[in-house]
Parts: sequence; structure tokens; C-alpha cells
Amino acid sequence: MNVVKKVTPADSDKSTAEDAKSWQANYDKMIGQDRTTRNRSGVAIEPLYYPENDPEGDYAQKLGFPGDGPTTRGIYPTMHRGRTWTQRQLIGLGRPEDFNERIKNILRSGASALSIIPCNSVYRGLDCDDVEPELLGTCGTVINSEEDMDISLRDIPIDEISIGLNDPSPFTMLAQMLVVAERRGIPWTKVTGTSNQSDYISHFVANHMFYRLSLPGARRVLLDTMTYCAEHVPNWNGLSVVGQHMQQAGATPAQAMGLTLSTAIQYAKDCQERSMDPDKFLQRFTFFFDISVSFFEEVAKFRAGRRIWNNLCKERFGATDPKAMRFKFHGQTSGCDLTRQQPLNNIARVTVQAMAGIFGGLQSLHTDGYDEVLSTPSEDSAKIAISTQNILKHEAHLVDVIDPLGGSYYVESLTDAMEEEILKVIAQIDAEGGMYKAVESGFVQHMIGASALEFQDQVDSGEQIVVGVNAYQEEEDAASRPVLERPAKEDMEAQIARLTKNKADRDQAAFEKAMVNLREVAQSEDGNIFGAEIDAVRAGASQGEIIALLREELGFGHPLVVA
Amino acid sequence: MNVVKKVTPADSDKSTAEDAKSWQANYDKMIGQDRTTRNRSGVAIEPLYYPENDPEGDYAQKLGFPGDGPTTRGIYPTMHRGRTWTQRQLIGLGRPEDFNERIKNILRSGASALSIIPCNSVYRGLDCDDVEPELLGTCGTVINSEEDMDISLRDIPIDEISIGLNDPSPFTMLAQMLVVAERRGIPWTKVTGTSNQSDYISHFVANHMFYRLSLPGARRVLLDTMTYCAEHVPNWNGLSVVGQHMQQAGATPAQAMGLTLSTAIQYAKDCQERSMDPDKFLQRFTFFFDISVSFFEEVAKFRAGRRIWNNLCKERFGATDPKAMRFKFHGQTSGCDLTRQQPLNNIARVTVQAMAGIFGGLQSLHTDGYDEVLSTPSEDSAKIAISTQNILKHEAHLVDVIDPLGGSYYVESLTDAMEEEILKVIAQIDAEGGMYKAVESGFVQHMIGASALEFQDQVDSGEQIVVGVNAYQEEEDAASRPVLERPAKEDMEAQIARLTKNKADRDQAAFEKAMVNLREVAQSEDGNIFGAEIDAVRAGASQGEIIALLREELGFGHPLVVA
Repeated sequence: MNVVKKVTPADSDKSTAEDAKSWQANYDKMIGQDRTTRNRSGVAIEPLYYPENDPEGDYAQKLGFPGDGPTTRGIYPTMHRGRTWTQRQLIGLGRPEDFNERIKNILRSGASALSIIPCNSVYRGLDCDDVEPELLGTCGTVINSEEDMDISLRDIPIDEISIGLNDPSPFTMLAQMLVVAERRGIPWTKVTGTSNQSDYISHFVANHMFYRLSLPGARRVLLDTMTYCAEHVPNWNGLSVVGQHMQQAGATPAQAMGLTLSTAIQYAKDCQERSMDPDKFLQRFTFFFDISVSFFEEVAKFRAGRRIWNNLCKERFGATDPKAMRFKFHGQTSGCDLTRQQPLNNIARVTVQAMAGIFGGLQSLHTDGYDEVLSTPSEDSAKIAISTQNILKHEAHLVDVIDPLGGSYYVESLTDAMEEEILKVIAQIDAEGGMYKAVESGFVQHMIGASALEFQDQVDSGEQIVVGVNAYQEEEDAASRPVLERPAKEDMEAQIARLTKNKADRDQAAFEKAMVNLREVAQSEDGNIFGAEIDAVRAGASQGEIIALLREELGFGHPLVVA
Repeated sequence: MNVVKKVTPADSDKSTAEDAKSWQANYDKMIGQDRTTRNRSGVAIEPLYYPENDPEGDYAQKLGFPGDGPTTRGIYPTMHRGRTWTQRQLIGLGRPEDFNERIKNILRSGASALSIIPCNSVYRGLDCDDVEPELLGTCGTVINSEEDMDISLRDIPIDEISIGLNDPSPFTMLAQMLVVAERRGIPWTKVTGTSNQSDYISHFVANHMFYRLSLPGARRVLLDTMTYCAEHVPNWNGLSVVGQHMQQAGATPAQAMGLTLSTAIQYAKDCQERSMDPDKFLQRFTFFFDISVSFFEEVAKFRAGRRIWNNLCKERFGATDPKAMRFKFHGQTSGCDLTRQQPLNNIARVTVQAMAGIFGGLQSLHTDGYDEVLSTPSEDSAKIAISTQNILKHEAHLVDVIDPLGGSYYVESLTDAMEEEILKVIAQIDAEGGMYKAVESGFVQHMIGASALEFQDQVDSGEQIVVGVNAYQEEEDAASRPVLERPAKEDMEAQIARLTKNKADRDQAAFEKAMVNLREVAQSEDGNIFGAEIDAVRAGASQGEIIALLREELGFGHPLVVA
């Protein structure tokens, strides 16, 4: 059906005037001094456009005003007209010193937040003295200790900038950063940002490198950390539910959204079982999505996801505070759509993906470097990626109007259709007993695997054209490909030496005591593991040591065998 | 006002069902076998979305179905779901041989039409033996004779591919190409394409390099050519009205559209005065626009322009054939928005511009190479530009749905507002006695100059940010800038030698006779100058010789002095 259907009449004949007035009041309060916006032709551009009448109640029920109702049009009354999204580039490379230098350059180019990607050895839970030096620092920064974290964040005002940590359970980087803040005299209440890899379920489903603990162990640590942060680091978003992993593993956009929301439902239930208050803990839920190049599908995915989450918060968890129903999300342009062939074409792909995310109403955006498919992005490509965001904001003026595609016959119809698909996935997971069980049984992995295969078949058959890959190929000069930079061997040896010295110099008694305490807390049913971890970091424990201990107590994160 | 207003009720309570049925029938007829389109999530994507009801007649009156009514949503029932736009890259460089090699490569990269840009010396009406060799071939191809044209189009099936000629009055390139076709045994009825620089008014307003003849002389030659083509080359679009020049000179998007439509009105009136049939000649009108990076403004500009032109054709010229009311346009991403600083950022700008043009419903598109702001685009950058179009088409799936932004509260409101601005400009030009007079008096030049100044003020003050120019500047390594390639001196000397030999070898008696005839036709009030030009080309006359003669008879194109 391609006609845009009316929903069942609700508040028949109710004019939108009242809602509009209320939105306008909230907008005025939040925006402060609004900027006068005219386009090049001199036409005044208002912050929001909406229908004059809503006789059948469609608008109120399905869209509503931004910051209100189903929040289909955005979670804040001002959206990008007020504060635009956070420009957050995920980077990591070499030594903490290298990262620090690069991130300062990127902040100068216009980024407004930072994220740290650690070295793969860190993801695997190992310290640098546990792996071959040539494996270190190629894809992320070698951060093992509080000192490494301190160097990475040198001259960065960690109380003023939002920080994303790619930091899977048991959140050793967060523990390190909190100790760094403490030593700098910065109160934890001023620390803001997100634990970007806290969604352990997604790791078991689709990002096997990131798990460090068994499924039940990871579950406990997440809840301990959320409880701890709720009390001590109230502005930290301890949970980022990651749709990106599912989509990159092959889930369709609708499946990725459905599975992500099901995962969030699981975590919310777990929090409720700990007697946490949904109006509080839901405020700290954030989401992290892949933005594919399938432009309208992505716009609709985000709009539908936001509407569904808003309803879920009310209906399933009884949230009453509108702040708890906000679907805050970070989007990263999908690396899966980028091609090794003709890599500069990726700048165009990233532009389309970023636009889809912006029109989808994101709060934070990472745009991929065009060479990100080949290696950790080079400094030049990272700058182009940031410039792309600035161009979309300042030159293309995509931030002037809230939900600018709202009302489009196609976009609204597609939003409804995507909503339907997403709800189907959620119902399937509900029927399996929730996301935790559906992952234990392999149900989710099968679903994603089937979709991945289907998409690959479309590419193989040429039904889905990928420019430069299965069509319009060019012969390429291998020499023109960027050379993958590797950290200097001496640098990595110095890094290992620093850790060795750190371990030798620390107060061994205090270290032992903290580790014994951490073990005891892990063995007990109560006690907060994350609090004990922070103590261990204070006492000089490295991330590898902490993780090794917790693996002994909580179980190693083996892949789930899926037949 | 940011509410979306309803227009005055027209066919009250009339359902859209009937119009939809008629559109569907036309769509089915035109599309042949429709492709099954599903997005990655498996949602079926229909070719068109529209409201179920149209109780107040808004939809029928303001938007209608594609190919019908005001054609706001597109001029064909199938639009890009059927045939996508023509991928046309304007290129020109060096010798005809160089052009030929480059264009064959670009066609292999996925371009579906070609355009030829001649050397600046050709624009100035001079043969290569009249200028210093170092000025030749840097910005376009040196094409002076029929032989040069033949070489440029070697192995190109000129009866199968649409050809754009950047060929100002008196259209010597078209004459050359028709003689080439004739010698290849290709009937002129099979020749399709456009005279891209036929809009002499725009040259006097804003592109001074392109005029060759006086204003009245150019007027006569255009009408002669249109009359000639109507009879002998019926599928050739002899008129391309060029908004690009105005906008690049500083007109706002609304002004550029208004002035372009006023220019088209002038040409249409001139044709009517020659007793040509509007239902015929209007079918050969095409438009050529700049697409700026001001995304929504450009989408609205095109939608509004299409609606206005449709109405104008009916109301002012009494057209009755829907084909005569079609607003066919080529869009070129605006070089004015590109920056010399950090040139790879231009790939993102071009992507945004191209998307705006596509959503605006264009029929043909040129995407700029990222280095086009520095020189004639390099082969690599031209390939990226073409890839950008392919990515938007095949990967971003922007072609699946007709007028995908239609219905958006913002886009529809902005379309109305832009329409209002455009109509104001048309009314101003009407009040000046039409475009010809408004240009003679300098009225138009003043209007554009004032807008150009205002925009530059905004950039200078930082109100309009241009990334890398007045914000986010980077220190750049001058060495990293692409080196401007110049044609080899020997090549240009060979080119001059070829022309000299051509002129020496031709049948001098036949040549003299053809030139005398051309002069007589130009001196007479009747007789068709373009027909006489073709005879001169057949007899071996070069473009420089033809233009020199016509300049003697019809007057040199001096700039209009504007105080």
C-alpha cells in the first residue's frame, strides 16, 4: 500500500494549536536566544513545521511535537536548531602520547567530544606485557594503567568534555578515568560521557572480540557498575545499547533496531529486579547505532525506534518522567558500506550516511574516515570526516529545522512500515523469553546469520550494486593505496617497559590488599564489584590483572556454541 | 508562519483515488516491467506515496501526481524509478584526441551522456591559429573544425548517446557535429542532446566570456537555429535556459530561478512572434541550473520552479500538450561552493548538492570533480564524481521513490515560500518590459550584484560559515595541492598545424562560395543563418572564420555598460 493511511481517530477534531503552544513554550525556554535564520533567498526558516489541523488525531498520536508525545520528531523541543549533535570521533592508536596528540588536533578541527578506542590486546583483556609487541597499537591505544589513561587525557578538560570509552565489561577504563579525575581534583559529578561497550549481550551475539567474562558474570558486573554510577557518577551513561554490532554482523536495519530494543528491555528488567527506579535508570540508557547507506531506511529506522522506545518506557516499565523516555543515540556511519576499492568514494558514502543519521535525529555522530576500511583512519581522513559534519551543519544548513523530513508521505509511511517490522522482532524475542535467553539459545545469532547471507547473495548476484566492487570496477594501482602505518617497535617496547616499571614501583602490599578485596567481592553475592575495581586501580592494578582475576571468579567469556 | 497552510478549497471532498488511478495507468504503461524493490529490512518500496484523501483539494492543486497537474512532484509518471537522470559530465581538455580518450574512460565509469567543453579561445570565437599556443587547451578542448569534432567523437555512437555541446551562439559546434553525423551516415533525426550555451541573455548578464555576437544578433541566430532544428533536427534541444550563470554570479536561488523563468518567457515570446507553435517549441526548451549546497532551499527551488513553469506554459502561452509544459532540467553541482582549501572536502559538498538536485527531480546531472575549483578536473576526480552519482543511485537507493520528500511539512512550506519569492522576481522583470529589456537596461545586473555583495558580506562576517575558509582553517602544505596540468606545447603546435593544413587543403572555391552565401543570408532579413553555417562547415570553414564573418554582419558582443 502506497497511500498514507490515517490512524484510527483518537482526539477527533482536536486542534494541534494547544500542543503547538506548549511546544513553543518549551522551545523558547530551552533555546534561550534563537538565531534568526534565513536561507540564501531570504526566506525565514522557522525551527519547526507542522500541520495546521489534526482533525483525526494522527499527528498527535503518531508524531507529536519534538520533546513530547511519541517523540517521533525528536527527543528535545529544540533538537539540532538548539544544540547540534556531539561531534565525536572514535580514535585510538599507538601509545597514549600518540592518542593525546591526535585527539587534540581533532578537537581543534571542530570535534566536540572524544572517544577512546583501546588496542585489541586491551579488548582481549591482556596487558601489553602479555602479547607480542608487533600486535600492539595498530588499531587502538595501549591503555593498561591509570598512568596510561592520564597521559591519554593530558590537557583535556575531562570535566568539560563528553568522553566516550570503548570499554567492555568490567569497565576498567572507566575505573582508570575516575581515578585520574580524582587525582586531578575533579568531582565525579562533573564527569560526563558514556560506556560505549557496556552492552555485553551484543558482544556475545556479534562482536566476539569484546567479551571478557562469561555471560552471567558480565551481567552482574554491568548491574554493579550501573548501581555504583547511579550513586557516585550520576551524569555518566553507564549503558550504551549497541545496535551497531548486530547490524554490522548482518542484521537488517529493522532487525538491528528490534534486537537493540529487546536488549534494552532485558537490561531494564534486570535493573528493575535490583529495585532500581525506572524514572532514574532509564535516563542513563543510551543507544549506539550503525548508519548504513540505505538512506531513507535509516531515517525511518531511527524515527520508528524512537517512537517505540518512548512507548515501551511507559508501557513496560511504568516510567512517568519524560526524561526517562528519551531515546538518546549515537550514530556511527557504517564501515560495512565502505569499500577498499577507490577509497575516496567513501567520502560520498559517509556523507549520505551522516545525513540519514542527522535526519533521524541523532544526539552524537561519528563519521568514518574514508580509509577506515583499510586501517585506523589517518589524521587527514579523520579531518575530512569532521569537516563533513561541519559542512552538513554550517553550509548545508541541515540543523535549521527540527525533523525536516517529517510529514513526507514516503518517510512517514516507511516509518510506520519499519515500526511494524521492528515490533515483529521484539515480539519474537519476547516469545523466546527475552534477549538474554534468546542469545543463550542461539536464536538471535541464527536470525542475523540468515540476513547476512541474504544480503551477501544480493551483492554476489548483482541485485545490490556496490560501486567499484561488483560494478564500475577500476583497475587500481596497488601503490596508490595508503600504506598501513604501524607504531614504531621502540615505542611499544617503551610502553611495555613503562608498565613493567609501574608494576614494580607500586606499593605491593596495598595492591595485594585491593586485589584480595576484589576477589572477595566477586565471590560474594553482594558487594559492588565496580567499587572494588576502582580501589584496585587506585592501588596500581592494571586492567589485565583485574580482568584476569575476574575471569577466574566470574568465568571466561567463551563463545556460545551455536549449532 | 511555520504551520503548513491549506490552500483555498478547490474540488472539495474530491478523493485522490481517481487521479491516483490515472497516474498508475500512465506509470504502468511507461515503466514496462517494474522492478521489485525492497529495502534491506524487507519492506516493499512503492514508486510513489501520497495521501489517501484530499478533502480540501490541496494535494491536487499544489502537488498532484507526477507527470500530471502542476507537476510539482516531477514531470514524468515514472521519474527516477523508471529512467534515472542522465549522468553527464562536462569535460574538455587539450586536443580532440585527449578529450576522446578521457570521455571514453568516463563513459566506462558509468556516465550515460557526454558534454563537450571547448577551449576558452573557442568561446571567444577565435581559432587556435589566432591565439598564443600557451593559452590553448587548458580549460577545454580546442575544437575549430569539423575534423576536430570528428576526432573528439571517434568511436562514440552519436546516434545512441545524448550529447551536450557547450556551444554559444552562433552554434558552430552543433553545425560541425551535424556535418560529422551526415558523413557517418547518421540521420539527423537520431541526433539527441542540447545546445547548452544557447541562452545568450545569460551571457550578457553573467558570463561575459561566452558572448560572441551583439545582443540583437544573438537573438536572431538563436531563433534561426531553433527554426532550423525544429524542421531538420527535431530531437535536438536547441534551447537551454541557463540559471547557472545567474546563480554563480551571485543571484540567490530564488532570484536565479525567477530570472531563468523570465528569460524563458522572453524566448517563448520571441518564438511566438515567429509564429512557432508553443505546443511544439516549448517541448525543446530545457533548463540548466546550479545546485548550491543549501540543501532544502535547492530542493524547494526546483519543485517551485517546476510548478510555476507548468502554469506559465498554460497561462501565458496557451500550451495544451502536457509535453510542452515539462520543466526538463540539467543540474550541475555548484563550483561556487567548493573550496580551494582542503579540496577533498568538496566530495562531501558535491554529494549534498547532488542529493538536493535529485530530490528536486532533475533529468540530467553533472557532479563536479573535487579539484574543479583548482583546474579542469583530473581524471581521478572525474571518476569519483561519477561514482558519487552511482552510489546515490545504487547504494543509497535515492531513485526508488518519486519525489521522496513530497509532503514533508518543511519542504512543502518552503516550496510555497520559494514559489512566492520566484514569482516576485518574475513580476519585477515583467514590469521592466521583459528580460531582454531588463538586461539592456542593467536592471538584472544590479539585482544580482546586490545579492552577490550581501552573500559575500555574510561570509566575511562569519555569519555564513564556509568550512576551511572562514572557520576550521588548516595550515596546508602547498606541495599537496594538485599541480595544474598543461597540455604539451608540441601537441598544441600540432593542433595549429592541423588547422593550417585544413585551411590550405580545402576546396577554396567552395569555401568562398559558402562564406559569401553566409554573409548574404546574415545581411538579409530572411533566410536562415544556421542553415548557411552548416553549408560553410561542410565547405571546410572553421568556427573562427564563421564567427568573424557574423561579427562583421551582426555586430560584436560588447559588454553592456552598466553604471
